[in-house]
Amino acid sequence: MSDPSTATTIEGASTFEGRSVNPTPEQLGAINYDDNGLVPAIVQDIETGAVLMMAWMNAETLALSLHEGRTVFWSRSRQEIWRKGDTSGDRQWIQEVAYDCDGDTLLFRVRQEGQGACHTGEYSCFHRNFGS
Amino acid sequence: MSDPSTATTIEGASTFEGRSVNPTPEQLGAINYDDNGLVPAIVQDIETGAVLMMAWMNAETLALSLHEGRTVFWSRSRQEIWRKGDTSGDRQWIQEVAYDCDGDTLLFRVRQEGQGACHTGEYSCFHRNFGS
Repeated sequence: MSDPSTATTIEGASTFEGRSVNPTPEQLGAINYDDNGLVPAIVQDIETGAVLMMAWMNAETLALSLHEGRTVFWSRSRQEIWRKGDTSGDRQWIQEVAYDCDGDTLLFRVRQEGQGACHTGEYSCFHRNFGS
Repeated sequence: MSDPSTATTIEGASTFEGRSVNPTPEQLGAINYDDNGLVPAIVQDIETGAVLMMAWMNAETLALSLHEGRTVFWSRSRQEIWRKGDTSGDRQWIQEVAYDCDGDTLLFRVRQEGQGACHTGEYSCFHRNFGS
């Protein structure tokens, strides 16, 4: 596997590859969406183990993510599909996707392209700790 | 540090220690609770990097967690404070707590006591992957 620090984006190509995941109907049926039709999706860097971010998916963007092999969220603020990294280049290439015991949270293990996951330029959105 | 596999619980004592975290007013003020007064809290094993579970906190249980050095959630189904591990013994001892760039998700890095985090007996609640 290549070093993430050497990743380059050339005309939309990537040194990373996502994995298309083919869920069973039973697996998709086990997902419990909230009253807004959404489920939280945690994103973890499979290389470093770092938790990068948490965002939301609906049934459509979960299906898109699994099919395309990269994360696609539902933007609650913009109320639209948010294909992570289309603007920033910081795409997330899916390696494994898990769902929890209650079916109400998803966990994406990805290879993170670019600088990181956070719109601030930080590698992880969780870059601030409580405490002084 | 001791090996988690050797952890024992004797009359409520633990081989693990949690860290009481003293947040600043600015840090607490940066947290954005949803319409139900809740914020999602991801729990990660600081030893293995595994994402163990996701549950919810309100302002009170966040304060209790930071003060006690172990995770305390708000149970949405039971509508009551849920001091993780009081029944199962699977307590989570806080080492670090982060909040994300938007202040709407928390990340607890813990030492997991007992068998694991999941009520099914699994180590992680995310023990099922999509795909066949």
